[in-house]
Amino acid sequence: MTQYRAPLDDFSFLLHDWLGLDGHYQRIGATGMDADLAQEILAQGAKFAEQEIAPLNQSGDEQGCRLVDGQVATPDGFAQAYQTYIANGWNAMLGNPDFEGQDLPYSMAVPVHEMLNSANLSWRLTTMLTESAVLAVNRHATDELKQTYLSKITTGEWTGTMNLTEPHAGSDLSLLTSKATPQEDGSYRVSGNKIFITGGDHDWTENIIHMVLARLPGAPEGVKGISLFLVPKIMVNADGSLGAPNRVSVGSIEKKMGIKGSPTCVMNYDDAVGYLVGEENAGLACMFTMMNDARFQVGLQGLGVAEAAYQGALEYAVERLQSRAPQGVQAADKKADPIICQPDVKRMLLTQRALTEGSRALSILYAQYMDIEKYTDGAEQAEAATVLAYLTPVCKAFFTDMATEVSNYGIQVYGGHGYIREWGMEQLVRDTRIAQLYEGTNGIQAADLIGRKLTRSNASMMQATYDVFNRVVAKISNTDKQRQAQALLNEWQTLSNDLLGATPEHCAAIACDYLQYVSYTLIGVLWLSMLDKLPTLDNQSFAAGKIKTGEFYLAYILPRAQQHKHIIMHAAETVYNTDISDFITD
Amino acid sequence: MTQYRAPLDDFSFLLHDWLGLDGHYQRIGATGMDADLAQEILAQGAKFAEQEIAPLNQSGDEQGCRLVDGQVATPDGFAQAYQTYIANGWNAMLGNPDFEGQDLPYSMAVPVHEMLNSANLSWRLTTMLTESAVLAVNRHATDELKQTYLSKITTGEWTGTMNLTEPHAGSDLSLLTSKATPQEDGSYRVSGNKIFITGGDHDWTENIIHMVLARLPGAPEGVKGISLFLVPKIMVNADGSLGAPNRVSVGSIEKKMGIKGSPTCVMNYDDAVGYLVGEENAGLACMFTMMNDARFQVGLQGLGVAEAAYQGALEYAVERLQSRAPQGVQAADKKADPIICQPDVKRMLLTQRALTEGSRALSILYAQYMDIEKYTDGAEQAEAATVLAYLTPVCKAFFTDMATEVSNYGIQVYGGHGYIREWGMEQLVRDTRIAQLYEGTNGIQAADLIGRKLTRSNASMMQATYDVFNRVVAKISNTDKQRQAQALLNEWQTLSNDLLGATPEHCAAIACDYLQYVSYTLIGVLWLSMLDKLPTLDNQSFAAGKIKTGEFYLAYILPRAQQHKHIIMHAAETVYNTDISDFITD
Repeated sequence: MTQYRAPLDDFSFLLHDWLGLDGHYQRIGATGMDADLAQEILAQGAKFAEQEIAPLNQSGDEQGCRLVDGQVATPDGFAQAYQTYIANGWNAMLGNPDFEGQDLPYSMAVPVHEMLNSANLSWRLTTMLTESAVLAVNRHATDELKQTYLSKITTGEWTGTMNLTEPHAGSDLSLLTSKATPQEDGSYRVSGNKIFITGGDHDWTENIIHMVLARLPGAPEGVKGISLFLVPKIMVNADGSLGAPNRVSVGSIEKKMGIKGSPTCVMNYDDAVGYLVGEENAGLACMFTMMNDARFQVGLQGLGVAEAAYQGALEYAVERLQSRAPQGVQAADKKADPIICQPDVKRMLLTQRALTEGSRALSILYAQYMDIEKYTDGAEQAEAATVLAYLTPVCKAFFTDMATEVSNYGIQVYGGHGYIREWGMEQLVRDTRIAQLYEGTNGIQAADLIGRKLTRSNASMMQATYDVFNRVVAKISNTDKQRQAQALLNEWQTLSNDLLGATPEHCAAIACDYLQYVSYTLIGVLWLSMLDKLPTLDNQSFAAGKIKTGEFYLAYILPRAQQHKHIIMHAAETVYNTDISDFITD
Repeated sequence: MTQYRAPLDDFSFLLHDWLGLDGHYQRIGATGMDADLAQEILAQGAKFAEQEIAPLNQSGDEQGCRLVDGQVATPDGFAQAYQTYIANGWNAMLGNPDFEGQDLPYSMAVPVHEMLNSANLSWRLTTMLTESAVLAVNRHATDELKQTYLSKITTGEWTGTMNLTEPHAGSDLSLLTSKATPQEDGSYRVSGNKIFITGGDHDWTENIIHMVLARLPGAPEGVKGISLFLVPKIMVNADGSLGAPNRVSVGSIEKKMGIKGSPTCVMNYDDAVGYLVGEENAGLACMFTMMNDARFQVGLQGLGVAEAAYQGALEYAVERLQSRAPQGVQAADKKADPIICQPDVKRMLLTQRALTEGSRALSILYAQYMDIEKYTDGAEQAEAATVLAYLTPVCKAFFTDMATEVSNYGIQVYGGHGYIREWGMEQLVRDTRIAQLYEGTNGIQAADLIGRKLTRSNASMMQATYDVFNRVVAKISNTDKQRQAQALLNEWQTLSNDLLGATPEHCAAIACDYLQYVSYTLIGVLWLSMLDKLPTLDNQSFAAGKIKTGEFYLAYILPRAQQHKHIIMHAAETVYNTDISDFITD
């Protein structure tokens, strides 16, 4: 199995040479932040990811999680690694400084989060969901709740969960039936069954803080009648000490395709004590304030797994000797050439790398605008929020779709050995597959992009994003590359505006193709921008390979955008002009 | 979990209305064969697949295979189902009538084999490999060996295996090191370690007949020094009774991503008694006579799994209620609409169906030419052999690539539930993934197509295939459809001929794209041909949905061919102009 190594060279290029981190921090007034600090954080994050959790990835998959006397036991080493993680402050990176958070910029945290995902996605999940709970409590809870809970989940002394899904309410939360009844003391009693709850129980911490969506008595039907509650696993006394167990139990651990080291729980709330977070019936709005963050984080999961799959494939392609290359003998001293000399293997590796590194560039641009949203205000902050809103479904769906492609190439480079568990490649395919499904399926992301983000904003969100990318293009010094990038942007703008008059049904039929088209196009623009920077880089050994990867993206990957454009323009009717009777003919 | 139902309506359309089975059998002189017999065989095959092995698919995956005291134990019910299978004669369908075979046409067997793959791929594998062993023994073994072994493996009283791969010799068999030493009695002693041996051991039959590639002393290096040996698990006495165990043992059962119900064994041969099959040093040639068949059979595995994934997704899409359709409320009496009303879900289902049914049409055309090769001689037989040679890598690689796409859509339609094992969809993704790897990875298939089949034949195999498809196009009565189909054929012919001057390196770089281009194009021609037939079909309820599926293929799927064409014409250099140093920069 390949030992994961954090791609620090690429992060260094992206943050320092491409984004210009010091200038970025100065522009947004992020005092005390600079490129040196970022580099140190990344180096330490790399060390943790490589040495503490990557070694647990395969054993975690083999062991899985077990339910012992109603309590979840996680794989060997997971709990210990978590203690190291929180002791070193990783859980608090982005947190509120009034509650023991470190308040770091996203541009420092996002690369670390990618590394965690590469090293051990199962392990990472519980900490990611805790971050979502931290956001929810920080933004929406009362001061009293914050005093009791926020520091604990910010540092990671306790973890958090998000409880949305019920068996009959997944994509459509309007159907959820969990109930909350107000009590005289101002608390509530929460009852209901939730499924797919990541980290619903575990053996890492003494307490777990569940964020639960439920309905109050007499609440309106649909999504406007949903409220958010904080439900601790163990009651917390007034002095902060732990009290009696709450009426929360684990029904079972789901048997899944992958992320087997992560306990995905069926949770039962049986008159459990809970506390309202945010306004009554505003639960979905509370969730939506976290949605950008959580969906982008899931995108990063795909990106992280894709990097791991590329590294695994590359190592094997260099070591595995098999046949002679069609261009002639490459390793005359050996019985056969390394398979990396085979053009078809180069094609697979280049596809993995071009998709992964292109997506990483977009993730860094996204982090840049998260920083801008965090550190600025007024029009600048508003623009950043708008751009993030448009790009969130793109990052979530595209990164996770491409991760399934890239990790499958990981298997394919290994040939039959890729199918054998010990090599670790098939685990990556199984693990990353979930990321196309949760936090809104990629179909839901596509509907969000073409619906709420494009047509319902009358293209204003697209236009704000266009302006941001236009600034990237304006900085391209090579005129050919600039012209090519500008043409990509303008085609995207025109195509997007042409969709404004289409019916909802028409848009829904081509939503996924629109999302793919946008992704390939915008990442194409970013590759052109990177290609413009690379020739003057000090590290020319690094630059040379990345230049070829970018050229490959433009020649080999970017044409996919044209295929999706063709479908967007011509194929919608053949999709939506079908009825159930066309599928069922008995 | 969805109960598999054999697509008998589609088989009936393809065999009777589209291919015209009675006329086909008359033309090739297949006496005693007719459409009624085929229909009866398909109905019985469907019954076996649906009732005997489909119910064992999920439990087989959960239980897997175990090694107990050196013997493989297969999942509950597998051995019993196999006894039913051979008792009903299914194993002998294609066999030599002199050795208890039924000598049926491929056009009757191929649909049955697809059904077996849909119902339970793990279970099917051992019988498929036995058919390969039957072919090898029938074509290449001495009469003496045939008398002892051929009836037994034809009926399935004993199973067979194919032993090619060694740890360091997979795609490149020239590196294999297993040895065979001649003995005075004319037998050989075979020693070596083989991996990835399907059905290497099991608890189904008293004996197993291993076909093993090994080197004789002083044999030439490379693939010209490989011979084929028959090595029984248990020695067979002169009177046909079983004797002592041979020196064959199972080292371990591979832990795999999927097909867990199939015992994939590491086999150790330690001076085991073996018998030469075919000429000395002609082992690879012996294997190649079976290659078309085995590779096509693997293609059928993809096709079978794709059908199962489509059925599972369709059932869920009709039953699952979630949200309202963008075109307006569809099921006012329910809290939400079935998700099949969502255009994006229609898109996924149509993609699954268009790829699956298009591939099935190609599989039936392939079976038609297998029949022609079997029943005719002279120029007609030679043309059929040539066409099959060109189409084999297409069917193997395209059907299995599309099966990974289609089965992943199976998961996607289910949302988060698709990731949970009980629903059965994720198993299909794991099971079918192997088919892109074994019997030559799909990269090897693509190299075979553009190398041996296109450029090294100076396009003659492509031209023979063109002629066959031209006859299909000539029968299209609608002039628009005929013109469109003819344009597709001519573009393929021109593009193929343009590649004749390219270097091997250039061809290798675009081999997979050429294979995809050919596949989408030829299946496009077949859809046009089917669309021409469908409007006059008696069963218009069936025809209506299939017409929409074909129109979807042309509008939504076929544009992929243009993307691959673009890459073929423009992207080769960016693939092969990379070196190891571009990937490794330390």
